[in-house]
Amino acid sequence: MYRPQIKVVDCTIRDGGLMNKSKFSFETVRNVYKAVCAAGIDIVELGYRNSKQMFSVDEYGPWRFCDEENLKKIVDGIKSDKTKIAIMQDAHKAVAEDILPKEKSVVDVIRVATYVKDIDKAIKLANNATEKGYEATINVMSISVALERELDEALQQIEEETKISACYIVDSFGALYSEDIDFFVDKYKKYLKNKEVGVHCHNHQQLGFANTIAGIIRGANYIDGTLYGLGRAAGNCPLELLISFLKNPKFNIRPLLEVISRDILPLSKEITWGYSIPYMLTGVLNRHPDVAMKLLEKNSDEKAKRDFLKFYEGLTEEEVED
Amino acid sequence: MYRPQIKVVDCTIRDGGLMNKSKFSFETVRNVYKAVCAAGIDIVELGYRNSKQMFSVDEYGPWRFCDEENLKKIVDGIKSDKTKIAIMQDAHKAVAEDILPKEKSVVDVIRVATYVKDIDKAIKLANNATEKGYEATINVMSISVALERELDEALQQIEEETKISACYIVDSFGALYSEDIDFFVDKYKKYLKNKEVGVHCHNHQQLGFANTIAGIIRGANYIDGTLYGLGRAAGNCPLELLISFLKNPKFNIRPLLEVISRDILPLSKEITWGYSIPYMLTGVLNRHPDVAMKLLEKNSDEKAKRDFLKFYEGLTEEEVED
Repeated sequence: MYRPQIKVVDCTIRDGGLMNKSKFSFETVRNVYKAVCAAGIDIVELGYRNSKQMFSVDEYGPWRFCDEENLKKIVDGIKSDKTKIAIMQDAHKAVAEDILPKEKSVVDVIRVATYVKDIDKAIKLANNATEKGYEATINVMSISVALERELDEALQQIEEETKISACYIVDSFGALYSEDIDFFVDKYKKYLKNKEVGVHCHNHQQLGFANTIAGIIRGANYIDGTLYGLGRAAGNCPLELLISFLKNPKFNIRPLLEVISRDILPLSKEITWGYSIPYMLTGVLNRHPDVAMKLLEKNSDEKAKRDFLKFYEGLTEEEVED
Repeated sequence: MYRPQIKVVDCTIRDGGLMNKSKFSFETVRNVYKAVCAAGIDIVELGYRNSKQMFSVDEYGPWRFCDEENLKKIVDGIKSDKTKIAIMQDAHKAVAEDILPKEKSVVDVIRVATYVKDIDKAIKLANNATEKGYEATINVMSISVALERELDEALQQIEEETKISACYIVDSFGALYSEDIDFFVDKYKKYLKNKEVGVHCHNHQQLGFANTIAGIIRGANYIDGTLYGLGRAAGNCPLELLISFLKNPKFNIRPLLEVISRDILPLSKEITWGYSIPYMLTGVLNRHPDVAMKLLEKNSDEKAKRDFLKFYEGLTEEEVED
């Protein structure tokens, strides 16, 4: 039995781009796009459309900006009617003017990522997108540290002031347990009467997939995953596990197995994602993973990388100082 | 808030021993024992006491047999009153005579692993253990393929014919979802009026920790984990995550962080455990992981290891032939 309303979103290139400054090769992005289309995934997110005023084009790769001509190179000869194309705008790092009218774009969905505090910026960008003809979502990041009163107010605003299709619970810190997912889905549903709830989970505590299932059971219908879990820090809910769980016969796992083998696994030479003790500790302590990412960078001290106790003491000492 | 009745069992050396024929060095086992004692873990399982008639002492390391003199070398100068020592006997590969009277042994708990079909052998070994003065548990393996009528009968027998402290749900194939855990815990509790329920989960679908939490929420009080998830195939519920979740102030994560860094991570040069696509596929298809373990062996063909599609087609073709 499956729920046909569920939309599965692959965000491999977008979330994975946080680990390599969005510097995937055109070949990799094209292969990922082709595979998720063949697998029957509902939506594929190919990167950010963030502002070139705020990100250097010398420092960041093309998938931080997703220029239309680059997107066209990806989809040329493949474009599938079944798989919509999404891009993300960060509420505090993107501008409305970078979005063309829908008829001039290959993009279908604009996803606006925001902290609770930036909700007015996010609503402006989401409304810009829907007014220009796109489907839009708002993705509330770092939800595990959102103040409840502010979140309630933000959800009320989203309900009243936008025409988005879905609003996401984004567990950026990988800090939530399934009971927390239940709590947030219930809260979102209380405020959002005509909008779907989405879940985007991280794997710092090896709960990315489990929390995604918890969200599905509780009624979330926009569901994010990435190939082999590729994504920031410990990564995301693995797409291959997600579609195996969902059982909708429209999905086909075979193209995903091929692209993981050919295109995703080789990236592990350059990018280190997946469960490790530093990420686990930031998740357990409900902290941003950036300190762990810094510790684990390719060129950082090998001995420090393994000194988990020192890293833990550092994290908990800071807490005392706060 | 925490539940003081919960007993946490570290089975790193026992389950990890399925990946290296129980050939851990004395130094590794001693460091693991010392760390879990310092961390306040309730029970530590140091290996199997299986029959030397059925396992060659030339082929297998000391922790497949756990001779008393070897165990004494491990605990000498460390032995903690708070941490009980367990060993495992396989119902179909062990004999009652290998168990000394309790007063002549450093062991406290005998865990008997069994398939449902071997339940009479398991009961015999468990009763041998309790009669000789030990605490005993029965661990029902491969539960995801147990026939329900046979399982019901086995649980009834365990209730009536044994004095074990706990009976385990063992998800050897990593095939269960949390709703399945709920189903089995409820069933166990229905039959076992005076015995605790245990959960031992594998991580083939990245659900080892999540399913363990599901078991705890549903009322299981004997909870298995291993350091950094070291165990057969995709491994187990990570002990470091488990004690972070449990919040019982008697636990101390620091010694676990140290031993993972110093003793467990270096083992990854010799042993490959953790999530990977072949294990994920056996989990999804509810198959024994042995075919995936064979594929991923150190010396097997590197190209075949990466050909996930071929492996998947092979697994599903066999299903058709069945």
